[in-house]
Parts: sequence; structure tokens; C-alpha cells
Amino acid sequence: MLDCFAPLAMTITLDEAVALDAVDPLRELRARFALPPGVIYLDGNSLGPLPVATPQRVAETLEAQWGGDLIASWNKHDWIGSAQRLGAKLAPLIGAKSSEVLVGDSTSVNLFKLLAAAVAARPGRSTILSEASNFPTDLYIAEGLAGLAGVTLKTVEASRIDAALDEDVAVLMLTQVDYRSGARLDLARLTATAHRVGALALWDVSHSAGAIEVDLNAAGADLAVGCGYKYLNGGPGAPGFLFVAEQLQPALASPLSGWFGHADPFAFEPEYRPAEGIARFQAGTPSIIAMAALEAGLATFDGVPMDAIEAKSRALSQAFITMVEQRCSELTLASPRDPAARGSHVVFAHRDGYALMQALIERGVIGDFRAPDLIRFGFAPLYNGFADVWRAVDALADLLDRRAFDQPRFRQRSRVT
Amino acid sequence: MLDCFAPLAMTITLDEAVALDAVDPLRELRARFALPPGVIYLDGNSLGPLPVATPQRVAETLEAQWGGDLIASWNKHDWIGSAQRLGAKLAPLIGAKSSEVLVGDSTSVNLFKLLAAAVAARPGRSTILSEASNFPTDLYIAEGLAGLAGVTLKTVEASRIDAALDEDVAVLMLTQVDYRSGARLDLARLTATAHRVGALALWDVSHSAGAIEVDLNAAGADLAVGCGYKYLNGGPGAPGFLFVAEQLQPALASPLSGWFGHADPFAFEPEYRPAEGIARFQAGTPSIIAMAALEAGLATFDGVPMDAIEAKSRALSQAFITMVEQRCSELTLASPRDPAARGSHVVFAHRDGYALMQALIERGVIGDFRAPDLIRFGFAPLYNGFADVWRAVDALADLLDRRAFDQPRFRQRSRVT
Repeated sequence: MLDCFAPLAMTITLDEAVALDAVDPLRELRARFALPPGVIYLDGNSLGPLPVATPQRVAETLEAQWGGDLIASWNKHDWIGSAQRLGAKLAPLIGAKSSEVLVGDSTSVNLFKLLAAAVAARPGRSTILSEASNFPTDLYIAEGLAGLAGVTLKTVEASRIDAALDEDVAVLMLTQVDYRSGARLDLARLTATAHRVGALALWDVSHSAGAIEVDLNAAGADLAVGCGYKYLNGGPGAPGFLFVAEQLQPALASPLSGWFGHADPFAFEPEYRPAEGIARFQAGTPSIIAMAALEAGLATFDGVPMDAIEAKSRALSQAFITMVEQRCSELTLASPRDPAARGSHVVFAHRDGYALMQALIERGVIGDFRAPDLIRFGFAPLYNGFADVWRAVDALADLLDRRAFDQPRFRQRSRVT
Repeated sequence: MLDCFAPLAMTITLDEAVALDAVDPLRELRARFALPPGVIYLDGNSLGPLPVATPQRVAETLEAQWGGDLIASWNKHDWIGSAQRLGAKLAPLIGAKSSEVLVGDSTSVNLFKLLAAAVAARPGRSTILSEASNFPTDLYIAEGLAGLAGVTLKTVEASRIDAALDEDVAVLMLTQVDYRSGARLDLARLTATAHRVGALALWDVSHSAGAIEVDLNAAGADLAVGCGYKYLNGGPGAPGFLFVAEQLQPALASPLSGWFGHADPFAFEPEYRPAEGIARFQAGTPSIIAMAALEAGLATFDGVPMDAIEAKSRALSQAFITMVEQRCSELTLASPRDPAARGSHVVFAHRDGYALMQALIERGVIGDFRAPDLIRFGFAPLYNGFADVWRAVDALADLLDRRAFDQPRFRQRSRVT
């Protein structure tokens, strides 16, 4: 009996992969995406693909709402409630209450808001503690805030986080799944450790939300931010999101205190008075067109249980590792082997990684490259299947066997890699 | 001989208004907008209408670019250069060089970046000076920064700005055109006054860009921010923009130091290293879909000289004032009478202003209401004409003459006014 969620111990045939897809309980979700024919898209960890419903949803926002109802749309089509409405839709994907999540601004801007709020909530403490390999923009934003708020950003290796947590740490800022290695940190354990020294725990779930099971409430997380354009399929540069645990909301304040976070924005009061609840973390006017696209992206998760997402993510990435290691001996696994210690993307190292990835993309298998030598493959449970995994490995093995990647045109670097 | 730019001394007939429109050199630009039939839209100062070209431009970004080319679009369709490309298109509308303007984030977030940079560039000074009636979100954002950066926000009446400028002022933060009264401040004179005490001048041109002639370089302005969704027709919540005078750019740094402002974002360096030039003021990943809509909005200005915009703005608002004062004696002008001291919107006071505006909207004349008693009418030179002005005044006069606005249903307040 085929079980699509059982770990693969050995290479399978394409027929067997197709048979696994046929019994995948999530198999019908692929039809929610407009994937180009012939493309195997393993880069949803960087940019999710276009959902089928998005163009119509955006066109309606443009033509019937903006074009037809103009300014009245703020009330009539609840543009004014977008940030909270989308937050409530996103909440179950990350184990949060609907009153704890807000959508809007970029992940970087949201991180700044919450980091600043956290530092202010822990007066007398002067350290933001993070991990040295954290996604750079998170570290850059913390640096920017540190300069302004008179605190210090300290980074350590993942293995030294526990040792570095002391009573001077105001906030422990970590990314649940590492953008490069795919390594998954223990959300619940590290949150509890931070709490033991009185620090707040702020998680970036950009590389995990929508791809694995994230349970912020179960972990007791205080704060989180994340990205709308990766596994949430919200479109290029989609608005990000933020999470603030309910009991913390009254005590925290965003320094980006724009009018949309005011208790009564249209009273045009001269002084800032924060809204009750999560709404106080809004800043300026949200882009309604970008919100419409993200709302269609979030709808690709309608009716999908997150434990099934987690199980399929593990099965796909595990199958990929097993098959690559059997067929591509030149590649070295650079992600954790234990699925519980890994997110939904897998990284292999190869001396000629850049050229190899370019050649693979030319074959229609889209992953990406991260310096110095890593090729990265993301597995999105909503639209990737076992046949995708099989074909990706087959293309990779063929390129390596024939050294077909070893050509000057595959070495030309682009601005964005 | 009809001259559509000459000030109207008296009420004209609808035929005369139509004749003025026929000789308006900007008359053909109205065809660039998908205005609903029968609607007279005088609220472009709040939300510009849908340009005809926008749906196609956005659909192409969604389907051909995102859907078809996926992640490769960052290079292939220059998504990566969006913030600067749109900035260069916007620059001539505000008298800036193409290397001085950047598009992205909200106006509030951009204001925070520039205010923080300005305060840091004037160490030892502890005041942000502004005007008491400035747009509230500007004051809220300055408040938020003040708390974080250890400086003070001081607000004074417009007439007392000169007197309040002293050597403790790090930055003078003003809005060129008041959102409520339409009063226009003297950009060049106040900038020079700020410079005399060594302060930087930061201008919010949200209510002026695209509606009047704004010349930041001629005024010697240091910094500016503005809004993409009003007269620039970028769509609801469109990305905002920021301006930093070229010679100041190397010395200023944004505390929202996200990866898009890094000198080499895709090197994923652990430490922040700001990009050269205006690019350093980017923060996180911009919404490409929102940028596409704004790019189509900016294209509605293609080939339009800004002095013609200014001339038509004055002629329309002047005609409106003349006719309202002749036909609607219950209304009191609450905007400056001198066109040089006014932006492109006009405000009248009426005790029943809210109900009057609701009744007017029901008649298809869309303006808006600002507490406590102001009805506001924006004149956008690209798509409004003299017949619009005539019909708006006629509807207003009729409502007043018959007291047709005096009904309970016109008094029901909405969340957004």
C-alpha cells in the first residue's frame, strides 16, 4: 500500500512517484495555481507562484471597487479593515488567534516596529540577541534600531544561544527556519529559555509560515513577523505580517505610530492615541491592491489542515534528499538530515553550484543559488508533488553525469540571484 | 476670446463652462481615466481615480511576469529597480533630479526614515519643529520618533514658524498644502529660514504633488515625502515616495536599514552597508503589484508640463469659489482666497457640512467632509474641467435652496469619512 507521507528509504521510479501523487490527500490543491507548463517550481520559499484566482480578484479590486466605487470603497468594500481581515485569515496558519495578527508593510518594517516595542517594554536591558546566520535584513533592521534606541545587537552561533541568554537581553530575535541551510530552531524550547531570563521572544517565520506547522500560541511566543510572498503566495513583495500575543498588546507600542494605528484615524486628532488591540501596530495606509493579491494567496490554504502541510513537506524533502544522495554523489547535503530539524527547503553544496543551478533552470527546474556554493530547493506542499521531486533529481543527475552545466553562459551573474 | 486660465469674476453658464473646457490645453487628458459615467469626482486629493491603462498594466505584471516568468522577473522585468525607476519618473513632477527620488513604503514610513536621518544629522539639536495643523499622521510619526530618539516635537501655528526657528531645531517638518484648509506654505521662503538657523527642511508634498507646481530643487529643500494615491493616481494605499537632495545623500542614513537599502542585497553580508545614493533609503522588498499600478498612475502625467497643471488648478478652484459665493450664501470660504496661497482643493464651512456632503455624493458629486464642519473639493487638472465645476456648484446650490440635505439618512456616519 502506497503511503505518500512515509519516508522514502531508496530511489523510486517515475511511475512510483506518480502513484504517490495519486494518493496524496493534498493533490487537488495544485489546481489552485497557474504554474507554467513544463516548469518544476521549487522556489516557493523565495516567491510563491501565481494562484489561479488572483488576477480576477485584483481586477475586481481595480475596476469595480477603485474604478467604480472610488473613495466610497474604504467603507463599502471594507478596505479600512484589510489589515485585520487578512490577519484573521492568516492566524490559523501560524497557530495564532485572529486578534493577534496584522497584515501590511514589509517584513523589515514590521520587524522594526516589534523590536522597538520589545526593547521599550524591557527598560534597563540593553541587548537584542540574535543568531549570526539570521536572515541579513533582520540583522540590518536590528542594527538600525540599536543605533537609534541605544541598545546593542549581539549575534551568536545557534548552538550558543542558550549560553548567551542573560538578564541583559531584552529580546531574543530568531528566525525559525534558516533561509540558507533550512535548519529549524525549536520555537517552544527557545521561547521558554528566553522567558526564563525575562526576555521577550520574537520569531521571524518568513521561511516557515505556510510550509510547515507553526504554532506560536502553543510555543508561548511573544512576537513574530513574516513574509507574504513566499509560501503564502501573495505575489512579489506582498505585504508582510506581524503577530503580537494578546496579553502583551496593551503594553506594547509601535514607534511607527502612523494614522492607521490610531484609535480614531478619521478624527484627525493632533496627538497619537493607539488603537486597542493589534490594530495599533498599523502605520500608514496599506496598499489595497497588494492586499487583494495577498488575500487570494491566503485563500490557497482554504480548508487545508496544517498538520497535512507539515507531513507532506517532510515527505517531499526527505524523498529529495534520498534520491539526490543515491544519484548525485558530487553533491553534499548542507541541510539537517533530521526532518524535525529542517524546514521545507533543502540545500546541497557543489563547487560549481551557481552554474549548476543556472543549467537546471534552463531545463525548467527552478530552484536558486546562495553563495558561496549552495543550491536550494523549496518544497511547497500545496503545489509540489513526488513526480516533481523525481524529475528535479533526474535533471540534476543528468546535468552532473554529462557535466552539461560546465559552460560559460551558466556562469554569468545576475543582479538578483 | 475665451481663456480657460483667466480668473473668473462672475458666475458663468453651463454653455460657457463647456466652451472653456473646449479650449483647455489639457482637455484630452481626461480620456486617460476610467471615471464612472455621471460622476463628478472632486476627491482626487484623497484618492485619485483609476487610470484607463492600469488594469492592463497590473494584469501583465500578474500574469506574464509573476505567473509566467516567476522569480526570474526580478531581473528580466527589472522588478529590482522599481523603486528607483518610479522615482525617476516622479522626479520632474516635484522639481527633483531623477537620482533624488525613491518610491516605496507608505508616506508615514518614509517620513520616519527621513526624520530620523535628519535628527541624526544634526547632533546636539533636540527639536523637531512643525505646524499644529499638520496632517495628523505626520505629527504622530514625529511623536513616535521623538520618543525613540530622545528629541522633542514642538508644534506652533503657521504664523509663528519663523519665530520658533532657533538653533535647537534639527529639522523643520511642514506640509506644503494643508489637507484641511488647502493653505499653501511658501516652500522656498520657509526652507531658507530653516537653513539660516542650520536646520534641515523636510516637506510633505502629499497634497501638492501632481496638482500644483512643486519645485523642491529651486526651493533648496533638503528632504520631502509624499503620497502616491492622491493626485498621482497610483491606487488605494499606493506606495509613497521620498526625496533626499543629492548633496545630502552620503551623510544621511535610514534607521529602517532593510536589505533593499544595502549596497549588495544579494551578497547576504552579515552587516549593513548602505547603498550609494538614494537607494540606501529603501527598506524591505517593495510590492511589485502596487508599484505596477503606481507606474501606470505616474504615466497619466506623460508629456504634461507642470506649469499648465498649476495654471489650470488655479483657474478651476478660483471658478469654484466665485460661483459658490454667488450661488450658495450659506457657505463660508475656509480656504485662502489668494490662489498663490492655496493648493488645488477648496474648503467651505457649513453647520450641516456632513449631511450636505452626503446628499451631494448621492447626487453624483463626490467631495468629502472634514470635522467639524468643512466640505472639501479637490480639483485635479488632469481630469476635472469647468463643466464639472459648474455642475458641482449647481447641485450644491439646489440642495441648499431646497434644504434637501436635511434628512436623517444623510447624518449616518461611516468609519471612514
